[in-house]
Amino acid sequence: MERVVIALGGNALLRARPGRHVREPVRVVAFGGRGIADIAAAGWEVVVTHGNGPQVGRILLQQEAAKRWVHPMPLDVCGAESQGLIGYLLQVTIGDVFFERGMERPVATVLTLTRVRPDDPAFANPTKPIGPFYEEAEARQLETEQGWVLKPDPHGRFRRVVPSPDPYSIVEAPVIRTLIAEGTIVIASGGGGIPVVEEGPEARSGARAWSTRTSRRRSWPATSRPRRCWILTDVRAVQRGFGTDRAESIERHDREGGPEMLEAGEFGAGSMGPKVEAAVRFVEQRGGRSVIGDLDAAVAVLAEESGTSIVAG
Amino acid sequence: MERVVIALGGNALLRARPGRHVREPVRVVAFGGRGIADIAAAGWEVVVTHGNGPQVGRILLQQEAAKRWVHPMPLDVCGAESQGLIGYLLQVTIGDVFFERGMERPVATVLTLTRVRPDDPAFANPTKPIGPFYEEAEARQLETEQGWVLKPDPHGRFRRVVPSPDPYSIVEAPVIRTLIAEGTIVIASGGGGIPVVEEGPEARSGARAWSTRTSRRRSWPATSRPRRCWILTDVRAVQRGFGTDRAESIERHDREGGPEMLEAGEFGAGSMGPKVEAAVRFVEQRGGRSVIGDLDAAVAVLAEESGTSIVAG
Repeated sequence: MERVVIALGGNALLRARPGRHVREPVRVVAFGGRGIADIAAAGWEVVVTHGNGPQVGRILLQQEAAKRWVHPMPLDVCGAESQGLIGYLLQVTIGDVFFERGMERPVATVLTLTRVRPDDPAFANPTKPIGPFYEEAEARQLETEQGWVLKPDPHGRFRRVVPSPDPYSIVEAPVIRTLIAEGTIVIASGGGGIPVVEEGPEARSGARAWSTRTSRRRSWPATSRPRRCWILTDVRAVQRGFGTDRAESIERHDREGGPEMLEAGEFGAGSMGPKVEAAVRFVEQRGGRSVIGDLDAAVAVLAEESGTSIVAG
Repeated sequence: MERVVIALGGNALLRARPGRHVREPVRVVAFGGRGIADIAAAGWEVVVTHGNGPQVGRILLQQEAAKRWVHPMPLDVCGAESQGLIGYLLQVTIGDVFFERGMERPVATVLTLTRVRPDDPAFANPTKPIGPFYEEAEARQLETEQGWVLKPDPHGRFRRVVPSPDPYSIVEAPVIRTLIAEGTIVIASGGGGIPVVEEGPEARSGARAWSTRTSRRRSWPATSRPRRCWILTDVRAVQRGFGTDRAESIERHDREGGPEMLEAGEFGAGSMGPKVEAAVRFVEQRGGRSVIGDLDAAVAVLAEESGTSIVAG
């Protein structure tokens, strides 16, 4: 069997759609799981990974709202909660589809930690805004009491910022490899993995950092050696000149132009840029194919009839 | 290598202790992880399972406090979050101890679902109180809007009650078995597993139920065939006549008397009863040994120098 990595955007898992259960994110995640089951049913070995930005944001809001009664957990622990939450919903949905089709294929969610370097320059320069907004007085108090870094947004409200270090390997890679080899569909590296530091007396302590950027190097070769990478998100295709009046969808894209377009910020910095970067890196490292497309059209994206394909030039 | 199951009580993972980081539950869980690492370092194959009652209670409080902004997740999803949370903290701590000692042993948390029967009589008779307390008017509103069942407590406040069905097998048993056979220390079945129903069109849907009682049959034989079971909790030993003025600690206990004493409620219904029941069942099924003791004294409990031993009579 050929191997594929399916990466689901955190927003794609949460978005509200007309006519769907807008107030029930469970159903929306379930819908995402159906596309994965389709791909697995087509005979692929599958590793599923997913974003967790909106989900961690919601957990942080819940912690904040209840902080008088329940002591909030640090960021790495919230990431672990989100891996449980999303992994469970995906797993149940994939299981449902298999059950309906009379298929037997084990599905497992492996809690995933990624190693980051304690001297990663990101730790000295936290940039990723997370969680709720605060007024200035409260922000100063949180800096003193919690040791957080807070920065003002353009509207003068303050928000916590955390580092985005670059992970260099996946702690559970051997475990994930073992399970894939046995035919298990593995859900792993949610949110890019929980960043941990392996050094000093508290050797594997949580890095209290944010790891969205780990999509940039997700150690594909060590983990699973897949031949294809599908990134399923909430847009139909990658756009060149994103957010400008010359925006245009890209159908096919050879990897050669990728890095230059990334440098030029053609895809927007926030959300699509890292996805294109991950897709280009995947093709560079593996010589296979990447496709970025809409979760709603998973089967068409699988057939490369929809989305943006990135192939060796 | 001989195999052991270590079961950690949810309360033991959360309790505050004098002189410790009372406001930092992370540290308390970390302390529990250290005992597990000691046992693994002594050369055992280890499966770790844990309660999640207090942790799910805290997640429910957080959801309730933020419900105006963030739509709460159903109970099964909260259980999945708690498995991520506790599994991560245990895994990091065990990793720390191994790193300090120069040991290499993979540790993995596997999200665990347990199958329950849709016609389990527990569904018609929810008994397990969970989450925050409500005044009567709000309780009635929640019954109408959410479809919850709420019952009054002795002080006239209302609390949600949920079913406690008996699980009959562990969905991820093959995955857990594969990993143990490879020498991985597996953290699994947190909170007794997330109860799911495999039937009907939504085949593996979450059962919206509470599974604390799954400790009564945790399918030991199918999962791991361990020879010993240590249940680590927050008391030094099991007490006969718990909560009465004739309470006395039990040092050694043959399994023959167990069921009768359970029937008589000698150990208290809430917390210790199910643990004794699990320990007695384990010995009945496996012919091995169970020990119930204090997490603080994990190494002494391991040596059967502390705690209550339950052995074949």
